[in-house]
This record gives sequence, C-alpha cells and structure tokens, in this order.
Amino acid sequence: MMTPAPTPSLLDALVGDGEIGAFFSRDADLSAMLRVETALAAAEAEAGLIGDEAAQRIADACRAFQPDWDRLAKGLSQDGVVVPELVRQLRSAVGETHAKAVHVGATSQDIIDTGLILRLKDVVEVYLARLGALAGALRDLRTRDGAASLMAHTRMQRALPFTAADKIDTWLQPLERLEDTLRHLAPRLLTIQLGGPVGTRAELKGHGNAIADAMAARLGLGSAPSWHSQRDRVGEFASWLSLLSGTLGKIGQDVALMAQNEVREVRLATGGSSSAMAHKSNPVPAEVLVTLARFNAGLLGTLHQALVHENERSGAAWTLEWLVLPQMAVTTGAGLKLAQGLVENLTFLPSAAR
Amino acid sequence: MMTPAPTPSLLDALVGDGEIGAFFSRDADLSAMLRVETALAAAEAEAGLIGDEAAQRIADACRAFQPDWDRLAKGLSQDGVVVPELVRQLRSAVGETHAKAVHVGATSQDIIDTGLILRLKDVVEVYLARLGALAGALRDLRTRDGAASLMAHTRMQRALPFTAADKIDTWLQPLERLEDTLRHLAPRLLTIQLGGPVGTRAELKGHGNAIADAMAARLGLGSAPSWHSQRDRVGEFASWLSLLSGTLGKIGQDVALMAQNEVREVRLATGGSSSAMAHKSNPVPAEVLVTLARFNAGLLGTLHQALVHENERSGAAWTLEWLVLPQMAVTTGAGLKLAQGLVENLTFLPSAAR
Amino acid sequence: MMTPAPTPSLLDALVGDGEIGAFFSRDADLSAMLRVETALAAAEAEAGLIGDEAAQRIADACRAFQPDWDRLAKGLSQDGVVVPELVRQLRSAVGETHAKAVHVGATSQDIIDTGLILRLKDVVEVYLARLGALAGALRDLRTRDGAASLMAHTRMQRALPFTAADKIDTWLQPLERLEDTLRHLAPRLLTIQLGGPVGTRAELKGHGNAIADAMAARLGLGSAPSWHSQRDRVGEFASWLSLLSGTLGKIGQDVALMAQNEVREVRLATGGSSSAMAHKSNPVPAEVLVTLARFNAGLLGTLHQALVHENERSGAAWTLEWLVLPQMAVTTGAGLKLAQGLVENLTFLPSAAR
Amino acid sequence: MMTPAPTPSLLDALVGDGEIGAFFSRDADLSAMLRVETALAAAEAEAGLIGDEAAQRIADACRAFQPDWDRLAKGLSQDGVVVPELVRQLRSAVGETHAKAVHVGATSQDIIDTGLILRLKDVVEVYLARLGALAGALRDLRTRDGAASLMAHTRMQRALPFTAADKIDTWLQPLERLEDTLRHLAPRLLTIQLGGPVGTRAELKGHGNAIADAMAARLGLGSAPSWHSQRDRVGEFASWLSLLSGTLGKIGQDVALMAQNEVREVRLATGGSSSAMAHKSNPVPAEVLVTLARFNAGLLGTLHQALVHENERSGAAWTLEWLVLPQMAVTTGAGLKLAQGLVENLTFLPSAAR
Repeated sequence: MMTPAPTPSLLDALVGDGEIGAFFSRDADLSAMLRVETALAAAEAEAGLIGDEAAQRIADACRAFQPDWDRLAKGLSQDGVVVPELVRQLRSAVGETHAKAVHVGATSQDIIDTGLILRLKDVVEVYLARLGALAGALRDLRTRDGAASLMAHTRMQRALPFTAADKIDTWLQPLERLEDTLRHLAPRLLTIQLGGPVGTRAELKGHGNAIADAMAARLGLGSAPSWHSQRDRVGEFASWLSLLSGTLGKIGQDVALMAQNEVREVRLATGGSSSAMAHKSNPVPAEVLVTLARFNAGLLGTLHQALVHENERSGAAWTLEWLVLPQMAVTTGAGLKLAQGLVENLTFLPSAAR
Repeated sequence: MMTPAPTPSLLDALVGDGEIGAFFSRDADLSAMLRVETALAAAEAEAGLIGDEAAQRIADACRAFQPDWDRLAKGLSQDGVVVPELVRQLRSAVGETHAKAVHVGATSQDIIDTGLILRLKDVVEVYLARLGALAGALRDLRTRDGAASLMAHTRMQRALPFTAADKIDTWLQPLERLEDTLRHLAPRLLTIQLGGPVGTRAELKGHGNAIADAMAARLGLGSAPSWHSQRDRVGEFASWLSLLSGTLGKIGQDVALMAQNEVREVRLATGGSSSAMAHKSNPVPAEVLVTLARFNAGLLGTLHQALVHENERSGAAWTLEWLVLPQMAVTTGAGLKLAQGLVENLTFLPSAAR
Repeated sequence: MMTPAPTPSLLDALVGDGEIGAFFSRDADLSAMLRVETALAAAEAEAGLIGDEAAQRIADACRAFQPDWDRLAKGLSQDGVVVPELVRQLRSAVGETHAKAVHVGATSQDIIDTGLILRLKDVVEVYLARLGALAGALRDLRTRDGAASLMAHTRMQRALPFTAADKIDTWLQPLERLEDTLRHLAPRLLTIQLGGPVGTRAELKGHGNAIADAMAARLGLGSAPSWHSQRDRVGEFASWLSLLSGTLGKIGQDVALMAQNEVREVRLATGGSSSAMAHKSNPVPAEVLVTLARFNAGLLGTLHQALVHENERSGAAWTLEWLVLPQMAVTTGAGLKLAQGLVENLTFLPSAAR
Repeated sequence: MMTPAPTPSLLDALVGDGEIGAFFSRDADLSAMLRVETALAAAEAEAGLIGDEAAQRIADACRAFQPDWDRLAKGLSQDGVVVPELVRQLRSAVGETHAKAVHVGATSQDIIDTGLILRLKDVVEVYLARLGALAGALRDLRTRDGAASLMAHTRMQRALPFTAADKIDTWLQPLERLEDTLRHLAPRLLTIQLGGPVGTRAELKGHGNAIADAMAARLGLGSAPSWHSQRDRVGEFASWLSLLSGTLGKIGQDVALMAQNEVREVRLATGGSSSAMAHKSNPVPAEVLVTLARFNAGLLGTLHQALVHENERSGAAWTLEWLVLPQMAVTTGAGLKLAQGLVENLTFLPSAAR
C-alpha cells in the first residue's frame, strides 16, 4: 500500500504520530515491497521454480535498489498500482540474465497487501507497547489519586459521589479488553497474501502452498490461502482501531468535562494558551482525543464500504482502503500518545481544592 | 433498549427480517426488562437484600404485567428512558407491601442494557444458525457447480479463467471466519449490566458482586463488572454486523456482475420484473445485499460515535445506540436470509450456455 | 418510495415525529403513487396518448382503490419495487377496457420518485412552519432573557462574559440561513420525475415534454427533464436535513452544558427523572438533539454513497435511499419539535441565582 | 486552518491534486494568516484603534516574516492552535514599539477561519474553471459521439437502446446544477470571520462592524457577523464537495461498467496495465472516481459531526474540521481532473465495433 509520506505539516504536531506515520512513508512502503519480492524469490528457489542464483541476484538487487520515484509515480498514476513499474525497474536492476525470475507467478496485490501486512505487524507491536504503558499510567494514577472523592455525572447532571478509582476503572477495563482482542486478531490479520493474478496460485505450478508457507516463514508472518478479495480482516482491524480511538475519546471527553472551571475535579499540569485570553488553560489533548474518536469512527464507516470488493479485484474498493487505513492507523497511534501524556499530567483534586 | 416495533411497512418485505425484528419489538423489549427485574429481585432475595416473599411477588407481578403503554411512552418522552415509569407501574402491580422491593439498588441502565443483551443472545443464536445454513448452501453449490469454468475479473476487466469453486471459496472463507469471531466475541458481549446509579454497586450494600453473579446465572448470561459507560463491546458487536453485511454485499455484487446479460456466468432461478420492460429479470436480492452492506457500514460509523460516552451515563450517546443497533441487527439478519435465497437460486452456467 | 409505516414503538415517543412520519407511511406512499398515476393519465389524455374516458376511469379507480397489501408486499419482495404489482392491481381495478391505458410510457421510478417528491413538498412546508415557530420562540426568549449576563466558554473553559442575547443570536442566525437555503433548493427539488424505462420519454411518442409539463402542473410540482439516475437533488436535500439537525444539536449541546448543576446558567422548566436518583432533573430534549445531529450526520454520509447510481437505474443505490431518507426526514422533524419545546422551557438564570 | 503540506507521496500521483493541495500547505496557511493580520491591522488603523504607523509596520513585518516552524509546531501542539505562538513571533518581528498593535481585539479563530476562507475563495475559482472545462469536454464528446447507439441498463441488466447523447446528458445536467449551486453558496461562504475571543467584537470598542467591513473589503471577502461557532456554511460547502464527487463517481461507475470487455460500449484511449496479465487495460481513472465519491461521502458524514460545536468554541469539533475539510477539497479537485482526463480519452463505440 503506497501511502503518503509523513507530512512535515504543522497539524501533525497536534494529531500526527511520527513513529506510526513512518510505517506508511513511501520509503517504508517500497522497502516492504522489496522484502516481499525477495522472500517470494527465495521461496520460489526453494521450490525449484526459479534458480538459486536468480533468487540471490534478486535479493542483492532489492537490497541495493535505487528507485526512480518519478517513474514510479507516473506508473501508479497510469496503472492504479505501482507494482508494474516497480517490477520493471527491479528487473532492470536484476539484469537481463535473471530479470524473468522477478515476480514470477505473483501479482501486484500479492506484493502490496503483503507489504502492508508486514508493516501492520510492526504497528501492532507499537500499539501493544503503548497500550501497556497507558494502562500502567492509569494504574499509577489510581494508586496515587484513586481515593479522591469525585462526583459521578449521568446525563450531564450530578449523580452521586464515587471515587477517582471508580472512574479510572471505567477507562482501564475497555483498554484491557482491547489489548486482549488485538492479541487475538493479530494472528488472523498478520498473514501473507499470495494468490497470483486471480488468487488461485495456478501460476506457481503446483508449488503455490509450499511457496506461500516458505515466504510466510521468511517474512515472520502467518500463511493462509489467498485473501485478496476478502477484506474482512482489514475491516476487523479497522474496527479495532476505531474501538480504541473511541475508548480514548471517552477518556478525553470525561477529562474535558471534569476540567471545566465550574467543576474542577481534575487539573492538568499544563494547559493550552489563548491568543486573546491570558487566563485560559485549555485541555487540548483531551479535546483532541474526542476529535480522533469521531474521525476514526467516520473513517471506519468508509473503510467498511470497501468490503464490497467487486469480483477478483476492485480498483475502486482497494484504493479506498489505501486512502483510509493509514490515516486510521496513524491517528490511533497519536491517540495513544496523547492519552498517555494526558494521564501523566492529570491530578484528581481533593474536594477541598474545588 | 426500547426500540421500534417491527413495522408493518412494505419495505420490510424487501429488507426486513420478521424473526430478528421481533426481538426489538416493544413487547420483546418490555418482556426482557421484566425478566431482568425478576432476576434482580430473586438474586437480591438470595443475598438477603429483600425478602423471599417480595421476590416471589415481583416475579408474579412481572409474569402477569399489563403495561399502560401510553404512560410508558409519555414517561420515555419525559425521562429519556422508560424505566422510571415502568418501575412506577410495576410497583403498583406488586402492591404496597412489597413495592419498595422492586428495582432495589438498580438504575434504568441496568434494566435496559441487560434487557438488550438478553435479546442479543437470541439474535446471536439466529445468526449462527443462518450462517451455518448459508455456508451449507454454498458448499452444496460448490459441489454441484464448482467445476464450471468461470472468467475471473479484476478491476472490472476479464482476467484469467478459474472455476466456480474458486469463486465460491472466496465467499465462504470469510463467512467461516466470521462465524468463528462471533463465537469468540459472544461470551464477552453476553454479560449482564448491573451497576446501580453510577456503576459502583454501592447501593447493593456489599452484596453487589454476589447479586450480579446470581442474576447472571438466572438469566443465562455471563457476569462482569458494571460496563454501563464502556460501550466497546456494543461497538465490537456492531463491527461484526457490518463485517458480515459487507461480506454478503460482496457476494451480491459479484452475482449482479456475473448475471449481467453480457456476461451470463450465472443465472438466477427467479428475477425481478419491471413495470415497463417485459424482458427484464432483475437480480434483486443481489442488489439488496449491496444496499445492506453500504447501509450497515454507514451505521457502524455512526454507532462508533456513541463510544464517546460522557461521564457515567450519556443520554446523547446511549440514545444514539438505540437508534442504530436494532437497525443493524435486523438488516444483518435480512442479509443472511437474502443471501441464502440467492445462493439456492443460483446456477453457474457452463461456458457453452453463454 | 415505499417506506415503513409510522411505528407504534415507544422510542417514537422520544425521537419520532407523527406528522412527518405520516408522510412516509405505506398509506401515504400508496396514495401519492395513485395521485401520480392519475396525473399521468390525465396528462396523457390531454396529449391524446390515451382517451379521456380512460383517464377518467383511471382517476376513479385510483380514488376508490383498495390495495391487496399482501400481494403488494410480495411483489415488492420479488421485483425490488412495488410498482409492477401495483400496476397489475390498478389495471384490474380499472377494468379490461381501459386497463392498457394505465401507466402508459412510464416506469416504476417515475411513479415512486414523483410520489416521494409530492410528499417532500408537504414535508418542506412543515419544516418551514416549524422553523418559523422556532425562530419566533428564540426571538421571544431573547426579548425576555437576552440581557442576562452569561459566561462564554471556549474549549470547555470559561472565557469572558457576554449576554444571553449574544448566545441566542448564534443559534438563530444559522436557522435563518437554513430557512433561506430551503426556500432556494425547494424549487430545484420539487419537480416531477418522468422518463419512462430509460429516461428518454421515448415511449411517450413525441409528447413527453408536454405530458411532463401537464403532469407537473396537475401535481403542483415543477417540470424538469428526467432525473432518475441523477440523485444530486436528493443528496442536496439530505445535506440540508443534516445541516439543520446539526444546528439544532449545537443548541442542545449548549443547553446541556449550561444546565450542568455546576454551571447553572439556564434552567429547564421540566427535567427528566431517574429510576434511581430522586434529585435528578435531566436535560433530555437537549441530549436528544445531540443524538439526532449525530444520527443524521452519519445517515448523510450513507445517503451520499447512493449518488453512485450505476447506469440508468441502480437497485442497490436506490434502495439505499429508501432506507435512509425517510429516517432523516422524520428525525429532522422531531428535532424541530424538540428544539421548540426546549426553547420554550428554557430560562436564562440571572447571575445572582447561580 | 493549519493543514498538511502537499505530501510527496506516491499515492498523490493517483488521488492528489497539486494545485488544490497547495492551498492547504503550511506555507499557504501561514501566508493567508499573515494576510489576515495585515488586513486586520489596516482596518483597525482606519478605525483609529491602532496607529497608521503600527499598521504599516505590521504590514511590513508580515511581508518579510520568517517563521520559526519548529516553535510554531510546538505551539500548536501545546495550545491546540498555532496562533498564540504565531502572534508571539509576529510581535517580535514587528518590534517593541508596535508589538501591542498586532492582533488587537482578535482571537485565534478569527485568523484561522478567515485564513481558510481566503484560500477557499481560490479553491472555488479553480473548481468553477474545471467544472466549465469538464462540461465543455462532455459537450464535445456529445457532439462527436452523441449519435452512437447505446444499450441502457437498469438494475444491472440490459434495458432498452438509447444514445450516447442521452447518457452524456445524465452526466452533464447535475454538473450544471452544481456549478449553479456553487455560485449561489459562494457569497454565503466567502465571508470573513471576526469576533474576538467570544464572538461579540467587544474588544474592538464599538468599531467592530466598521473594522469587519474594512477588513473584508481589503481581503476581497464578504462581511458578516461573527460565525465562529456556526459551522453551517462550512458544512454546506462540504456537502457540495461530496455532491460533486458523487456525481463524478457516477460517471466513473458508468464508464467502468460500459468498458467491461463483455460490454464494450466505450473504449479508453489508455488503460492501466497489470504486473501479471499483459492483456489487461484497466479503467483506472473511472475506478478512482468511484473511490473518491465513496471517500468524500464518508468524510461528509464526519464533517457534519463537527456541526455540534460546543458553546463559543469547540476544540474537538474545530480540529475535526481541520482533519476532514482539506482532504475533501483536494480529492474533489482530483476528481475533476480525473473526470476531464477520462472524458477526453473516451470513445463511444459504434455497435458494429462491439
């Protein structure tokens, strides 16, 4: 999946995530695709479909590959996918003798989808680490401030007193569930795509499954039948992203409500300033968590439109995934970072202080 | 969750589902809430919080309960939830002696959320049965027509030949995965909600967890900490509904494309007629599967907006769930029925017939 | 557009609108379609395409028409549209002599789309009346409470003082603009659809435009070229519905925030009660306005998916409109009623009272 | 509105729009904000609120301004808006004597919203020019190929013959309407935002309206009361973007269907190639138009969520606009370019050629 490079825009300072964003840069994208071509060639050599020397030559060429970005862009623009032009450049880099051994029996989608999954594997690791850190920060906050008395609010009105620990538990429990669901869906999601032009592996001459297994092993991914036109796992992962963003948005909304001057149940160590009102201290990360929740909820609805994948490959639906999924992944990551910062800067105020 | 009764509208004939719809009728809704109040009272009697006689009286009153629908409607309109008026009517039915034993330590959301989950338990059973039947129909179709040669299409263009079995597998595999994910998420979803006014079970005087466990056992649901403001499981279930609808929509889209007069790879036993063109035979269920996929994808994005649940109860977010989730459940059910009918009426045509 | 009858559900008590809902009942739907068939026949008689006696007989039959609802439902289920079966029943009611004069040169979509527009004309009138009433209520509120000092809030924090009049103006101005845009889009929207099977009016034998003009005049609608596959006007109207719902949702959100116990800038004459907390007075209509805004925003995104209307008639896209537009129209109407009730029950509290 | 710089990503080659994208670069954003500060100062000097020399010094400083991007990014990250830090840098550039004359009586939102509108004015011009060119290309196509006989398709089935001219008219008419609606909404949209911290212009000491008028005149925008918390015009413009994208998506869908090998009613001069199948010629721009329609439809639903703008400034809702609107504007522009290219490369094939 060839997606926007991390932008140097200012808005990224607020809602971006350099670490996750980097997985969707054009360099990371290219690098992942080259790893896939390398693993494919190696697996095909094992199966005897191409020669060992060819596979070695391909591996070398991929390692040293210098793309002509302009022609890749032009190729993408014309073909709708970058792979035809990439294969052309790669074959040229491999040299005439072994050029034909490049990309044997594969199709664009094998390279692009597997390249995406390779990067999602890393993204999942980052999420798990950040989820752990966020849960840790929440547990620390509960240890420190949990006994503080707090007014529960239902339907925007004061309900009954409870404690900061009670409130924090309502934030922590869904995060624990989401960590669990991510661990369960990851093996389903993190599998190679290898199908050839129409998903049958017919062009791999009877070695399709063996090549898929070998390729998966080399890439550290699971093996599975071709899933090019079955986007349920992508849709399931996107659902998870939105569930997490929504869960973080709920934390942000709670904090913004509790931080109201009239309520003052929490204090943020640092607040946003205003260009016009010197006294303001705005709960910026809390607000942005709400923004990201609503953003990803909407994008999820759009991503699921792409489940209607016509026949054996839908240009329309697949391109829609490219436009949506990276944004969801990046803003989910941004939410995790913002939430952790928010929690670490949060103090539940003792009633006396209000 | 008090939701629209199954409507007698004509459109239901096309996109409705009487069996699933019935779970969201006002009668089913009321009945479920009464079961919850009964189980709550019984569990509270076990814990000694109310007397056995009171619990028995409540059970009897719930069994024989005759609602004043007009006042329930008026109560809902004023309170935003139907439970305050329902409890009023129920207490009156129970009689003065034990009136105070009704709804002890509980809040509207305990009754409504648990009442929803009770019905979702049945809904899940229906889905599993239908998924099994649909998968069976697809396997039968593969057995009968699987050898038929078919042209694969990528990006709306002819690609390479494969077989009907190859095509059917791309429909069947995600359904098998979705059956599996439903079985895994069901125990997470199908748990009672019991928290009292602000989710702490404080009003249950130290017996909260015991009462929750007993109540869950009586209702055939799982026990779990209060989750009233944690809507991730509802959002996860909704995601599943949309994943399934999208998967069925992909089948519908494929069939509509293959049934084109110019393509004629499949034939439907019956087609929709036109008021103007006698020769038309329209692939109506295939089209409607696409409709339902797009409808539920959009609703999913809206349902996830409700994850941002302010503080201990958000009237705005919770009401949004009520507007969206029943529709998603019903149209998902409709999709399963339509898909089965479509598959059973589908014949892959031998090349010679085209 | 054959849509759900107004449901007798309890939830309607909270988010329904009997007056608008009635326009989307199966009876209103049928009645509108019969008016269209009558006007079509009359216009065709004027043009000499059918006889005057036939047109008269059709008008009589439509007036006295007794539908077989079960067969209409079955027809809809099979054909995807109700019109083929309706025409069958209508022809039977007209009698053998003039049966062939029914529905001459028209297609299902002419009848259904024009029938929808007929009802939208009334819906627009209701909206305009309610918008006027709501604006009046806001102006009255400003007259009465406008001088009250209020604290403006930005980013959920106290900003600077202003007045209730300043706040009310921010609610009123977009409503005035939306009234204006509705008046401008109405003539574009409220036009008949007449195209025949593929939109060319070819079956009207050279009289198409004259028949369209005459039919439009009889129905009190504008005349326009066939627009069956051009859904921009439907999408534009849906956008307006969501803009209005969002504008009302902003009022609701402001009121819910100002009505917080800790803020107390406004008081609602009546509040929602709780089943567990006697002291609660919940700002139910304010919350529901937020719900409806988020609901319609989501539905708008779904409705716009239906702009991608394949070729000369998309069953998938058109059915999607049927599922979405009536809901949007009803909940927009409900929002207008709720907003007016909210405004009429609202008092801005003098600072001293806080 | 500080938004992502045009990314150098490959995906932009397919779905980007350099010309529109440039209006949302960080440089264009900054430049627009500086124009707003300049015009504000000039208008305030006219009104006597600040001195002429101060205004001149501000104009000079804005012209020569060299931003410290890192500190702007850091400021945005902390304050949620870039303006506090920008004003700090600008005051420093202006020098001590006149520093206090910068940004007098204004707030971040005045600068950011007006800066956005300035750029939307140019964006609207580009759209109008491209709409004209696209309509021209369609008219040319109709002139050349309009007489070609074509099979109309309803519900994915062959209906009746009509002509290419009939088909082209269904594409052209909504474009003509959309050009008209854009011309009508533009004056409503293209107005300055000037309100000061809470929208009352109170800090402009009685000169607010005069300053607003003068500022508007200098910027070539309309004057209007402060609309900072009234986002209906932004929502209306976004609706238009989606209506246009949907209209173009319908053209794309039609072309993709007509270009099917089995249908062959149109031919594209150039097609996308495949990495695996030498015979493929994929209708890439047609598919991408469908993608963009679905993408913008979904984003529209998200943008309308931001209509619920809490109180006098919602950080959550406003930031959501920043994430969504630029994407919609860019992809709408991309759609116009793609559509024109598609139309110019399109030939309706005579029946004999099929």
